[in-house]
Amino acid sequence: MMDTEYTAIEAYMTEKMQDSAHDKHHVYRVLNAALDIARYEDDKSTNTKDTDTDISTIDIDVLTAACLLHDIGREAQFANPTLCHAQVGSTMAYDFLISRNWTPTKAQHVKDCISTHRFRSNAPPTSIEAKILFDADKLEVTGLIGIARTLIYQGIVTHPLYIMDADNKIITHKAKGDGNSSFFTEYNFKLKNIYDTFYTTRAKAIAKKRQQAAVDFYDRLHDEITQNYGP
Amino acid sequence: MMDTEYTAIEAYMTEKMQDSAHDKHHVYRVLNAALDIARYEDDKSTNTKDTDTDISTIDIDVLTAACLLHDIGREAQFANPTLCHAQVGSTMAYDFLISRNWTPTKAQHVKDCISTHRFRSNAPPTSIEAKILFDADKLEVTGLIGIARTLIYQGIVTHPLYIMDADNKIITHKAKGDGNSSFFTEYNFKLKNIYDTFYTTRAKAIAKKRQQAAVDFYDRLHDEITQNYGP
Repeated sequence: MMDTEYTAIEAYMTEKMQDSAHDKHHVYRVLNAALDIARYEDDKSTNTKDTDTDISTIDIDVLTAACLLHDIGREAQFANPTLCHAQVGSTMAYDFLISRNWTPTKAQHVKDCISTHRFRSNAPPTSIEAKILFDADKLEVTGLIGIARTLIYQGIVTHPLYIMDADNKIITHKAKGDGNSSFFTEYNFKLKNIYDTFYTTRAKAIAKKRQQAAVDFYDRLHDEITQNYGP
Repeated sequence: MMDTEYTAIEAYMTEKMQDSAHDKHHVYRVLNAALDIARYEDDKSTNTKDTDTDISTIDIDVLTAACLLHDIGREAQFANPTLCHAQVGSTMAYDFLISRNWTPTKAQHVKDCISTHRFRSNAPPTSIEAKILFDADKLEVTGLIGIARTLIYQGIVTHPLYIMDADNKIITHKAKGDGNSSFFTEYNFKLKNIYDTFYTTRAKAIAKKRQQAAVDFYDRLHDEITQNYGP
């Protein structure tokens, strides 16, 4: 991708990103992770291929644009929670890339990556670029990055660290239909179970390496709070 | 303290507390910690005293009211950052307790505890009750509770997890007069240095026990981010 094209897409992304948990640093980390995963996936496919057909199987331009633009629909979802940022953002990205003279095929590929990047979605990613974006974005929910971003997000939406039951025990799982979420219910609903959802071996390995620190954080924080409330 | 008096003070506190980082759970943890510290301080003074004068040296009613009401000035400070919540809250607490028929002496004692509980203040606590409130509130900045509350607060005030310098290194210390704070600058400015600021041996011991988990969190989070940005 030309530098000028990268800069134009980046500028459009920056214009559309607002809150702290999904800020532009999140976008750059997703891009960094995606390019790292792409290098490993390319090596893997190269090793199993005839050297005559040794061309890269991953479209780095599509992947880069998809990473930069994957969360531009957040603002719309924040304003109207019935909207899905992946759907809104994928259409915004398509229109933007067409306006930048991308071919409809390439712009559609980016659109598909973005529309399938969401964890809580029925549409799984199909292309290798879509799977890499999915994995790179899910890495953001692993380890202490996942813990830190979830806590910041609790602050943004003014949800508490925890909610206690009548016996002064921390509620760790949200009952169905119960709107009251906290860091502790979010951890058990999403963060704890993310480690088995990866498509690529590289992302799985990074996630696995980060996992214990997140488990330790949860357990020790639970202990600190429980000890404060006494026996 | 009579149950009805506790309930009336608690209701006034709940009415005045809004944001997630300084919510009512924070207040209850401060109260729990303060009563725990008070038990140890009382035991200590009992052991060095003649048994004939073995009466408690700590006014638990004053301590309880001071803990419950110590952050009721937060809302005013949030709306107008030039105000100090400790000063505003101490006056609010005094007026409220006088309206509840507390004696001016007792209400003034609570007021003094609240006005000196703040870390970034020139007025140190003097009475044992004021020192215990100070310590109990500072315990909230230690360990993973301190980490979690700081991250939630970054979300509330929409500050980022980190800011990068031109070389893609995390900025860990805020330059003087620089308004851009992040979790990483807050950690180094406040959380890291809290462990030497306690008055009571009990609070110091609890803080010490929690310290390594906070250090580990900071170091590992720094590593995760740095590794993402690559060599």
